[in-house]
Formats: sequence, C-alpha cells, structure tokens
Amino acid sequence: MATLDPGIGEKFSRRTKRAINHDGSFNVRRRGGPHRGDPYQWLIKMDWWPFIGVVVAFFSLLNVGFALAFMALGLDSLPGVTTPHTWWQDFLSTLFFSIQTFTSVGYGHVYPGSNGAGFLSSVEALVGVLTFALATGLLYGRFSRPTARIHFSRTAIISRRADGTPCLQFRIANQRSNILIDLQARVLLKTVDPLTTNQSYALLPLERDAISFFPLSWTLVHDITPESPLHGLIMADYEARDVEIIVQLKGYDDTFAQDVHARNSYVHEEIEWHRRFIRAYEVDDDGTPVVDLDRLHETEALPEIPMPR
Amino acid sequence: MATLDPGIGEKFSRRTKRAINHDGSFNVRRRGGPHRGDPYQWLIKMDWWPFIGVVVAFFSLLNVGFALAFMALGLDSLPGVTTPHTWWQDFLSTLFFSIQTFTSVGYGHVYPGSNGAGFLSSVEALVGVLTFALATGLLYGRFSRPTARIHFSRTAIISRRADGTPCLQFRIANQRSNILIDLQARVLLKTVDPLTTNQSYALLPLERDAISFFPLSWTLVHDITPESPLHGLIMADYEARDVEIIVQLKGYDDTFAQDVHARNSYVHEEIEWHRRFIRAYEVDDDGTPVVDLDRLHETEALPEIPMPR
Amino acid sequence: MATLDPGIGEKFSRRTKRAINHDGSFNVRRRGGPHRGDPYQWLIKMDWWPFIGVVVAFFSLLNVGFALAFMALGLDSLPGVTTPHTWWQDFLSTLFFSIQTFTSVGYGHVYPGSNGAGFLSSVEALVGVLTFALATGLLYGRFSRPTARIHFSRTAIISRRADGTPCLQFRIANQRSNILIDLQARVLLKTVDPLTTNQSYALLPLERDAISFFPLSWTLVHDITPESPLHGLIMADYEARDVEIIVQLKGYDDTFAQDVHARNSYVHEEIEWHRRFIRAYEVDDDGTPVVDLDRLHETEALPEIPMPR
Amino acid sequence: MATLDPGIGEKFSRRTKRAINHDGSFNVRRRGGPHRGDPYQWLIKMDWWPFIGVVVAFFSLLNVGFALAFMALGLDSLPGVTTPHTWWQDFLSTLFFSIQTFTSVGYGHVYPGSNGAGFLSSVEALVGVLTFALATGLLYGRFSRPTARIHFSRTAIISRRADGTPCLQFRIANQRSNILIDLQARVLLKTVDPLTTNQSYALLPLERDAISFFPLSWTLVHDITPESPLHGLIMADYEARDVEIIVQLKGYDDTFAQDVHARNSYVHEEIEWHRRFIRAYEVDDDGTPVVDLDRLHETEALPEIPMPR
Repeated sequence: MATLDPGIGEKFSRRTKRAINHDGSFNVRRRGGPHRGDPYQWLIKMDWWPFIGVVVAFFSLLNVGFALAFMALGLDSLPGVTTPHTWWQDFLSTLFFSIQTFTSVGYGHVYPGSNGAGFLSSVEALVGVLTFALATGLLYGRFSRPTARIHFSRTAIISRRADGTPCLQFRIANQRSNILIDLQARVLLKTVDPLTTNQSYALLPLERDAISFFPLSWTLVHDITPESPLHGLIMADYEARDVEIIVQLKGYDDTFAQDVHARNSYVHEEIEWHRRFIRAYEVDDDGTPVVDLDRLHETEALPEIPMPR
Repeated sequence: MATLDPGIGEKFSRRTKRAINHDGSFNVRRRGGPHRGDPYQWLIKMDWWPFIGVVVAFFSLLNVGFALAFMALGLDSLPGVTTPHTWWQDFLSTLFFSIQTFTSVGYGHVYPGSNGAGFLSSVEALVGVLTFALATGLLYGRFSRPTARIHFSRTAIISRRADGTPCLQFRIANQRSNILIDLQARVLLKTVDPLTTNQSYALLPLERDAISFFPLSWTLVHDITPESPLHGLIMADYEARDVEIIVQLKGYDDTFAQDVHARNSYVHEEIEWHRRFIRAYEVDDDGTPVVDLDRLHETEALPEIPMPR
Repeated sequence: MATLDPGIGEKFSRRTKRAINHDGSFNVRRRGGPHRGDPYQWLIKMDWWPFIGVVVAFFSLLNVGFALAFMALGLDSLPGVTTPHTWWQDFLSTLFFSIQTFTSVGYGHVYPGSNGAGFLSSVEALVGVLTFALATGLLYGRFSRPTARIHFSRTAIISRRADGTPCLQFRIANQRSNILIDLQARVLLKTVDPLTTNQSYALLPLERDAISFFPLSWTLVHDITPESPLHGLIMADYEARDVEIIVQLKGYDDTFAQDVHARNSYVHEEIEWHRRFIRAYEVDDDGTPVVDLDRLHETEALPEIPMPR
Repeated sequence: MATLDPGIGEKFSRRTKRAINHDGSFNVRRRGGPHRGDPYQWLIKMDWWPFIGVVVAFFSLLNVGFALAFMALGLDSLPGVTTPHTWWQDFLSTLFFSIQTFTSVGYGHVYPGSNGAGFLSSVEALVGVLTFALATGLLYGRFSRPTARIHFSRTAIISRRADGTPCLQFRIANQRSNILIDLQARVLLKTVDPLTTNQSYALLPLERDAISFFPLSWTLVHDITPESPLHGLIMADYEARDVEIIVQLKGYDDTFAQDVHARNSYVHEEIEWHRRFIRAYEVDDDGTPVVDLDRLHETEALPEIPMPR
C-alpha cells in the first residue's frame, strides 16, 4: 500500500479535475504560507521564446536605467559624444555607451571623463560581467536539464489477449534519437467513489514493468484478471467513477547521463474499448528496424467483441 | 538496527542540545585535526546578501590593489590621464583604469604606456577573466544546488485513531510549485536515559513511509501500538527522556532533476497532546485541489481525551 | 522475465542487422511523429573536430551577416575606417569591426558613429556575449559528460572449465587511468527463430556479475550448463539463429562522480570456439600489477577440443 | 561471492604492493592498448598549484605565439606602437597587444591596421573567448566535483568486547563541517597465500554497516567470531598472509547534493593488537557535542591481554 497514494489527498468535498495533464503537470494549487517563488526554477522551466524575451527585457531595462543615470551626470562627463544635444539623441548616446560598458566592448570613442562617470561605468561593468555569468549558468541549466520526450499513444485501449483475458494497453515511443536504459513504468488507477466523492488509488500491475533498452516502441499491458481493480467494470462504470490511469516512467538517459522522468494520464474519455494496436515498426531494406511515430496511435477493432467480465 | 544510529554517539557525559535544528543543521562541532575549510562549500551555502557582499568586497580589494600598483609605477605609465595630479585623483584614475582592465571593458582613453604598465595590465586582465569564470561557476553552483523547501507543521501532535489507537502525527507541504516524486520519510526517536544521560535511537515505523507524488500536503502517522517505543509514555516521560522526533525526507525533484533532502525535528515542547489536524486543502470552483499552507499548522482538540496507555 | 526484453520488439518481417554496434549505438531508426531534433544533444555528442567546425562556421556566418548589415548602413556610419573604399576592402573592414564587437574586444579605432550603427553594434554585442555563454555551457557539457572507455576483447570465446563445463567468456579492461567502482554487468542473448524470423531475448547469468573495483582486467564468464539457453547449440546453430551476445556495463566513475554506462555486442562471427584467454596482467619489479591492454584480445587453443554438448 | 572480488585479479607471479594507498588511489598500471589520456580528467584531478601553473603556461604560450605572428606581419600592421623598434621592445609591444586581444580588453591605442592584422586579431579574439569558456567549465568542474574528506584513524586495532569476543576496529570522522547522510561502509579482507602468492578476498561483516547521519565520529567494528575469515589468525599470520583491510565508504553529501566516496586500507603493520579507542567526543558547556579530530587516533592498552583464539 505504501507507495500508492500520490499524496493528493483522499477526502474531497466534490469531484476534481484530472490529476495529471498530458504535459505531466499536476492540477493542484498552493495558497498562503511562506511561498517562495524560485526565480531559478521559473527561468529554467519556461519556454525558449519567453526566456529570450525575459533576457532582452532585462538587458534593455538595465541599460536604459544606466543610460538615464549617465544623462543625470551630464553629457560633459562622457567626452567623445559629438552628436547634437537633443534629449533623445543624448539618451541614445548614453544608451550606446552604457551597452558598450555592460557588454565590456568599450570602444572608447566615448569614455568616462569624470569621477562620477568613472564610478558609474565601473559599477555597470561589474554588473554586466556578473549578469553574463548568470546568463551562462541559466543557459547551461536550461540545456542540461534532463527531460524525456516520450510519445504516448493518444488513447489507451481495452483489448483482449488470445486466451480471452481482457487487458488495458497503451503504447509509448521515444521521440528523441537517444537511448533510454532500464526504463521502468508504474501505472496507478485513480477512482472516485460516486457517493462520497472520496478518491482512492490502486496499483495496476503490468505484464512487464521494465525494459533494458528503449530504442523502439513499447506496449504496456495490464491484464484485467479477477485480481485487477478494473475487473468487472463496464464502460459506464469508468465514467461514473472518474477513472484516471496515471502513468509514471523513469529511465536512464545516455546523453544527459541522468535519470529522466515522464508522466501522463488517460481519463475515461481517452480509453477506447475493444480495440487492438497496429504494429508500428517494420524492417528497412538494410535490415534496420524502423519505428513509425505516426502509427503509434493507430488501433483497429477487435475481430469480435466479448464484453470484459 | 543497522541504519538507526545517526552516528552522533551514544555515551554522553551530560545532556545535549536538540540534535537537529529546524533549518536542518546539526548541533555538533569539530575541533582539531587537519580541518580544511572548503571555500566552495562556504560560498555555495551562504545566503545571497552575504554572498553579494563577498563578491563586491573581493572585486573592490583586488582593484584597489592593482590601482595602488599602477600608482607605484607612476602616472606617466598611463597616458591619457588628464586630471590634476593629486594623490586621491591619481588613485581614482588608476582605480577606474584598473576596473576597465579587470572587466575587460578597456575603453582605451587611458592605456598602458610603458612595459611595466603593459605587463601589469596583462596580468590584471588574465586575473579578471579567470575571476569572472570563477564567479560564473559559483553562481551556477548556487542556483543549481537542489534544495527542498518542505514546510513542516510547527508542532507534532499526539492524536487518536477511530479505533482508539493513539498516534503521533505531523504534516508537511511543498512550498515550491514543483513536484516531488517518490518522496520517502524516515522518523527516528531520540531518547536520553535520565540516569546515565546515554542517548539511544529507535525507528518509528510510519503508517505510510513513501508517496508517489507530493503535490499537496502529507500527514505522517506513527501508530503508538504496544510495539512502539513510545508506548506507555506519558507527557512527563517525554520531558524526562528529552524526547526528540527526528524526521528525514528524500524525494526526486522534477526541476533540479536530482534527489532533494530535508530534515527537521520535534522536541518534547513541540509536541501537542490530544489534538487532531484540520484539513488543509479544499477544491476550487474549477475542480482544482488547493492546499492552504497557512492552515498546515492548525489543530483542534480531540472530542474526548483518553490517556494513551 | 521482466527486464529482459530490450524493447526492440519481437515480431519482425525479416532478419535485422545486429542490434548493437561496437560503439554502443543501436541499429534502429525513427520515422514520422513530432520528432524534435535536440540541438543540445547533437552538439554534446558529436566528435570534437566537427564540433569545432560548427563553432567556427557559426561564428563566421554570424559575423559575415553583421558585416553585411554594417555595409548596408554605409561606411560613413563607422568612422575610423581609413582604407580605400572597394567592396571587398569595405567588407573586410566591417567584418573586422563586427568581430571586435562580437568578441567584445572593441579596440575603438573604428566605432559606431551613427544611431543605426550604435543600435546594430549593441545588438551584436549582446548576441556575442550570449553566444559565448552558450559556448561555455556546451564546452562544459561536452567535457563533463560521464563516459566510460571500456576496452572489450575483440572476440568472445567458447572455452571450457577445468571440470569440463563449456563456457562463454569475454574480457574487458579500463582504458582510462581512473577507477570504476561497483561495476555491474548484464549479458543478454538475442536469437532469431530461423522459421518465423521472430526475435527473442534471454538473460545469460554470469559466474560473477559485479566487482567492487575495476582497476585491472575482468573476464566475464557464462557457464553453459543445461539451464543455459546456449546449451546444446553447435557453431552452425549460432549462425542459423543469428546469435548476438549483448553486454551492458554500469559502474560509478570516481572522476566524473557519476555512473557511467558501456555497451557492446558479439555476433556469431565474433565468437571463437575452443579457445582460452592468455593472462593479460603481470607484476612489475616494484610489486605493482600491470595490465597490458594489447594482450586483452589474445587467446590460445584449448589443449583438447571436446564439443560442447 | 559476487561483489567481493575487487577486480584486481587473483593469480599473481609474486607478492604485490598494498592494493590501495591512504589517498584512495590504487597500485596498478596500464600498458599498451589505445590508451586515451583524458585531458579533462587530468585537469580536474590535479592539485590547485599545478593547475594554476598549467593555466598560466597555456595563456603565456598562446600569447607568445600570437605575438610572434604579429611580429612576422610587421609592426606597420599595428599602428599606435610608438616605442623604439628593437626586437625585444617590438616583441613586448605585440605581446601586450596580443594579450589585450586575447582577454578582449582591447584598449585600442594599438589596433590592427592591415587586413592581415585584422584577420589574426579576429582569430585570436575567438580563441581567447573560447579559452575562457573552457576555463570557466574547468574551474566549475574542479570546484563542484564531490569529494569526501573522511579522516581515518591512523591504525586499525584488534580489540575485545565485554563478552571476550575479539574484534577489529577503526574509526572515522568528517573533516568538513557538512553532513553526510546514509553513510555506508564495506570492508574487504585481502590475503595472499604464502605458498602460491595467489590473492583472495573476503567480506568482513560489520556490527553496523550504515548510519543515518554522520556528523561526529564513527567506530566500525568487525567481530572476529568463528565465522570470520580472521578467526584464529595470530599476529605473525597477518604478516605472512600480507593482510590488507580494504575500506569503502559511500554517503550522500548535503552540499554537493551527490554521493561521495572514500577509500582506505590498513596493511598488517598498521594494525595494533590488544588496544581500545579513547572516546573522541565530549559535550561543551552549551550542550553541543564536540568531536576532537586529533584524538581520533588515540588508543590505550586493553586491561588484560587474552590472545584472540
């Protein structure tokens, strides 16, 4: 029992959203407390375009601030500015000087000609190099964060073995060209009691819960034997009990040299009944197995449809 | 038995402070020996403001040193300095030149005009870029160090199950918005023999010692069954034996992509008797569970108060 | 059974290439799907010379682009260019100015003399420092990626123990002068059914599947007992069934402070029959054991040749 | 049996040195083979002073090379050099210009005034920033490499329990002020057959082989029961069999957030007979336990000396 409860709680006043979204995030919020936003985590996990936006905005704001400070000192402090002294042109001149200082380019056709400008440019140069030190760390942190790109079949299916045993299946494939080693899977069933709206969790044992290498596709199978918590449920039960199949994957990534994790879940609308998967790989002319990621989702109806008992 | 002893020793000449503070640090000192202060560890673990102070002080000291060295060479070695030659003004001029060299801004309105100044500025430029290389590593090391921000309830409580079994409980919540995976807990009991002041440690088994995910709050429960080392102790015993409940947590952090650890302890003054926790989460209008970190500490009296036997 | 299947699939329409190449890569391809090439992984895993080529090409292309942009602004925007104005000489002058900006050298004999040039050089300076921040992370990522340099004997051998038991053997040695700790080995047998071309996998248990330290050579031995899936196979069977011996190694590397992994495989042509390994280490005059990596591959015929039953 | 053999081999033509030195290194050499010196590992593991020497030498050599190349182009290519043209002075002028380019200081009082000098300084600027990118990674790699500083007692002792059982003991303490978590120990016995000089290894089980925390000292104890491979050996046997006690430690370091490893060994000369350790910790006035690293080695004679049977 010990490791089943995902720590989401059990007693709820009403029905909740799905526990886990397709991107692996959880539907849960925090409120109150000494919540400490962690800027590093925020900057590491955000998408690339917003990140670039943040970098450009930060760079611009800092330099505009320094430019205004240099203007406050007076343009006499920056010998070499030869442009006509309008406010806008002075701002641009100090802005360019500020950026040349911040990035440590320092052409020198404009230079700090007073103690005030000397001090301010010294501070800016220090801030600049430390900012780029930070940016270096952030860029490395973003790139080197080990993430798995596991492709899940869009639906799970209720299928049937040759001996008639019904089974729950879904498929995964690796989107990257790297290799995952010792990939392990754990599948939880979340159900909601229709009367009390309490939630409970149960492990769904897999026919095979780990593979040595993961270069191709993998079909995960839970047999709906009499011991299974899914035994005897019909399609309407899945809906009434808000069935959610929660999938956790963990494997060692050869490139990142670290363990990577992936999560997904299938709610009852994402479970197809009486289907089977179509094989998603073939062998090329040169003898190389090829997995077709587009066919990962393809299923076909079972030849006959006995209701799972 | 093997993993219980926290290696703090058993035989003490007198009573000691609590073993573990609320910030997870240990009350223990080292003396003698080839103690090697590790500057990296010191710079990684210190708070941000002292760290910034150290960086600014280091930068200032180095540049003042180089400035004095350039002054010793004579201002003739630095063509371009046009300010009146007072000591203070010369110092400022060489300081600004030094900083421009150290940060590799190098405007060039002042430049090394002798072999001595050429050599000194070359050394400073190398020291400068290596210093910022170091700062880059330190900043990255500080940010990427995986730390858990687990919020512990301020007190542990002695509560009671529906069947009358007394139990020790405390609650935790995640302050960050990230997810901890496979969170494991281990709880040790430290007691002091009132006669010999010897210390001993015992494991307090938990009703559940691991959860798959940790997005909300988690209540850890140790049942005080006849097998429990807490069985039969009354409140006065807790004080007489210097009871300390030591908590170790370990889980995988999705953002840092590494295991994180947390520690805390409850001494006898931090244990409330005959209380129970008030639920700290609810469901929002959109079906999202919400944990309220402020209510993590809230307890209420048990309806009736049977003494734990 | 659980961890045997390398997730390569079982039912194939025809015979496939060897599963694993000598460099540890897999013979498998992906097709379709939202394949996301990961530039970080590509840049981390490529060899050094191509990587340097990519860096130089990227640096050159960016600077040529900026040079052409400065030319488009007109050379009047860059005071200090004193060379005769031919297209080629102007291109070289703007290219050198661009590189001085990109690398933040900024001599300043040429400098941005218009708002357009000021803006463009500011952008280039930012792009430059961020590019080198990226390069820093990439170089660190390349160097710090833990990789094992395990030297495998060129062939596996079918040998025989003193008691007559036939056995499969191969040898490994560490090419690096570091130490691997707790080195673990797992050996899989891949066979192809000659009739259906279906593939199946079986574990080959080792006499010893882990060692505490790995400073010298290690001979891995699988005894071909009646329980072994190799039992009773003769040399022709190895070929008919496309026998492939797949080796996985995992150990902790003291220098990288991380686990390292290595893989290799022996196909039937790389298995020598009725041989034994010659000892590959000796003791130097000062009492230090010495392993000779060149003799790792050396085998000699067994004194007599009983066919393995 | 599986994990005992440290992979050092078993059959040796003569006696060998101790397997493991006090700094944790192994007495083993490699010869032949495609040995690939790994410059990263070399630069990461070398001491700080040699490392700084390598950095300074590399920086100097590169800049001397570029200086000579600029001299070959002729000093006319570097306008701004105003010093008299002797070879040595020209060399210094180009060297300073080279360093200003390499470190991207670029004052600009000397600047590239020909296409050749423009090209050469562009290459040098690129080489310079990439070199410092490398240095950044190396410095971070050196600092962040998790290393344990475990202090071992200088000698192991043969002591005796209250019930008369003889036992082998040694002590460790943490030199750093950080905390090691879940510290595990494994102790191997290496013996040499006096007749064949073959080596064999055996595990020495410990009374306690792991502790939760390691803030103070820890005494590791192997009871010499009739099952122990040390049972019945007298002091002369230890010498005749070249007894070496090999110690492996592994724990999680809170600061590095990674596992750290330590190794040591005791050969027969480093084992004291019939001694016991003096307690190495006490309690300060404020109730804080204090470990005295200097007293870690202190032993005293046992009250009476029964020979271990």
